[in-house]
Amino acid sequence: MLNPPETEYFRGNWSAPRTFTFGHPPNFFRLESGRTLGPVTVAYETYGRLAPDGKNAIYVAHALTGSAHAGEPPAPGREAGWWYELIGPGKAFDTDRYFVVCSNILGGCYGSTGPASLNPQTGVPYAMDFPVVTVRDMVRAQKLLLDYLGVRRLVTVCGGSLGGMQALEWLVAFPSFVASAIPIATSERLTPLAIAYNQAGRKAIMNDPNWCKGRYYGRTFPVDGLALARMIGTITYKSKEAFDERFGRKLAGNEADCYDFYQGFEVESYLNYQGIKLVRRFDANSYLYLTKAMDLHDLSRGYPSIQAALRRIEGRVLLISTSSDLLYPPQEIRGLAVELRRSRVETEYHEIQSPFGHDAFLIEFDQLSKAISSFLPD
Amino acid sequence: MLNPPETEYFRGNWSAPRTFTFGHPPNFFRLESGRTLGPVTVAYETYGRLAPDGKNAIYVAHALTGSAHAGEPPAPGREAGWWYELIGPGKAFDTDRYFVVCSNILGGCYGSTGPASLNPQTGVPYAMDFPVVTVRDMVRAQKLLLDYLGVRRLVTVCGGSLGGMQALEWLVAFPSFVASAIPIATSERLTPLAIAYNQAGRKAIMNDPNWCKGRYYGRTFPVDGLALARMIGTITYKSKEAFDERFGRKLAGNEADCYDFYQGFEVESYLNYQGIKLVRRFDANSYLYLTKAMDLHDLSRGYPSIQAALRRIEGRVLLISTSSDLLYPPQEIRGLAVELRRSRVETEYHEIQSPFGHDAFLIEFDQLSKAISSFLPD
Repeated sequence: MLNPPETEYFRGNWSAPRTFTFGHPPNFFRLESGRTLGPVTVAYETYGRLAPDGKNAIYVAHALTGSAHAGEPPAPGREAGWWYELIGPGKAFDTDRYFVVCSNILGGCYGSTGPASLNPQTGVPYAMDFPVVTVRDMVRAQKLLLDYLGVRRLVTVCGGSLGGMQALEWLVAFPSFVASAIPIATSERLTPLAIAYNQAGRKAIMNDPNWCKGRYYGRTFPVDGLALARMIGTITYKSKEAFDERFGRKLAGNEADCYDFYQGFEVESYLNYQGIKLVRRFDANSYLYLTKAMDLHDLSRGYPSIQAALRRIEGRVLLISTSSDLLYPPQEIRGLAVELRRSRVETEYHEIQSPFGHDAFLIEFDQLSKAISSFLPD
Repeated sequence: MLNPPETEYFRGNWSAPRTFTFGHPPNFFRLESGRTLGPVTVAYETYGRLAPDGKNAIYVAHALTGSAHAGEPPAPGREAGWWYELIGPGKAFDTDRYFVVCSNILGGCYGSTGPASLNPQTGVPYAMDFPVVTVRDMVRAQKLLLDYLGVRRLVTVCGGSLGGMQALEWLVAFPSFVASAIPIATSERLTPLAIAYNQAGRKAIMNDPNWCKGRYYGRTFPVDGLALARMIGTITYKSKEAFDERFGRKLAGNEADCYDFYQGFEVESYLNYQGIKLVRRFDANSYLYLTKAMDLHDLSRGYPSIQAALRRIEGRVLLISTSSDLLYPPQEIRGLAVELRRSRVETEYHEIQSPFGHDAFLIEFDQLSKAISSFLPD
């Protein structure tokens, strides 16, 4: 307890119940950038049992600040998994039938190797010496995990936002391994608008004097920077309607205090709270690296064209959008569905009706369950 | 030149060619908050000549970072006014016929009293001792200026965004003085989404260690904070289509450098540039106070209802929206037109077709000119 005020902030990698490590030197894991990394640890959880033929597996991919903890019910001292409503006996991802795997992505801070991990060459955390990783790198690490677990084929791979990018990448990178995929609220390559918001978030972190070029581990955490980054992100994850309905112009305090510069509206208190919540559980450098991975996400990179990439796909696809998503609007996801069909991919498209914007994939469980259940084999 | 690196940043109030000062103690200017301020200086420019009856005047209201310099042609060492394309002989605001007035708003940093002005009670800049000002306060200061100039009635009052809020406030606050108004890309009260973005911008400034609770005058300017605030603002002023068309996913540097963490996309370079540009010309504390004034803008405050406020209006109204405006979407401005008509206000509504989003009122001069000319009396 050298630095007590810090204890409420993120202080290094989470302990994860199960891990798999590969890329032991000199057999480093080779990244898309050409740089190498190793050893690489992937923290994971599984739900259900793998069939003897290894072909009843489902991979669930998490979004920006998620973890491998997707499917467990709430337990003492432990929150419910982030997709607990979709994963379990009799649920959309039915653990009586399927073996569901979720792992923390490369670059994350929930047990998998990321910028907060110790660099074996220096004995201190990588910080900004961590190499840039891509969605393709994440998926290749996940493939090594599934090989290790004995999975021989995926019934489906599903995720929202950054998780959806992984689902798309799985289809193209390992076509014969993936029977189907369900990318939600996502894109085949990040748009300049979304890149712009990510950049603003990174700038917020890097402007924080406590960021110290990433070398804040064991020192003061860049609380204000990461909280502001989260605030910016949270605004884009909602919709105009959601803000109108939930907050309107209600003041956080008394009407009489409205002319006090430091008093504000309820929407401001809510966004402050979202920022503070993330700071307690997430690493600022991971935020930098994972938003960078989103920016670089482009399914067509390394292929002659996006069509050439899509034509590699062998599995079926269910694309899901949300009516009020500002970052990944329905018309763009519908456009991807058209491209997939043109590339002779068996494709379904479903639009969730919701005022919750981009966040809907973490909220609208009934609509998601129905769409997923009717897409998966009986 | 004590601190040479600072000279490229904002260093205090701009010199303005003409000023009007009122609220000399003890006859302070009383603000909507109940606080007093004085003396208050308003910097202004005029174009054209006032008619002997004082009834050929047009007031042009600027937006967040604008100035009184609206209508002048480019001259050596001086940029063209921000609405030069609309103000001049034979233009929409025809200076052969009209006397056009524009002043820097209260709280601004282009010659009018704001947080960078010297507080006569302390002899140092107000900084955060400056009182919160509202759109209503701005308009009341403008009314005193027009009285001083001998204006007896406004043919119209026109502005976009924060300028449009002033136009709406003029209609309600001084109904018999305003023959018509042209509020553009604006709202009768700021939405929670727009408040949220304003809050993120303020947070960016206040997180900057150089901000020093506003007392940075004569010290190091909070460059990074204001630049980030501008970056966030700029994203919201554009549209998704505008970003797609202008930038796509073009990299700022070489393809080979795409895995360098500090290399980015063209859209990022553009937003950095917008941030740096503003830092050279605008005061960070003014940014705080003017976004706060936008947040507090609510035409109905002090009236039993929004309808009660609107029913005060005697002049005609032309509301203008932009098809791709994310902050003030057409359907909401159309909704205000409906409310105005219900309140028996003679109201026209015009939607500018443009991919330029909220910024269109500073770009789409042809469409604006046509709409304004056909609305103004022959």
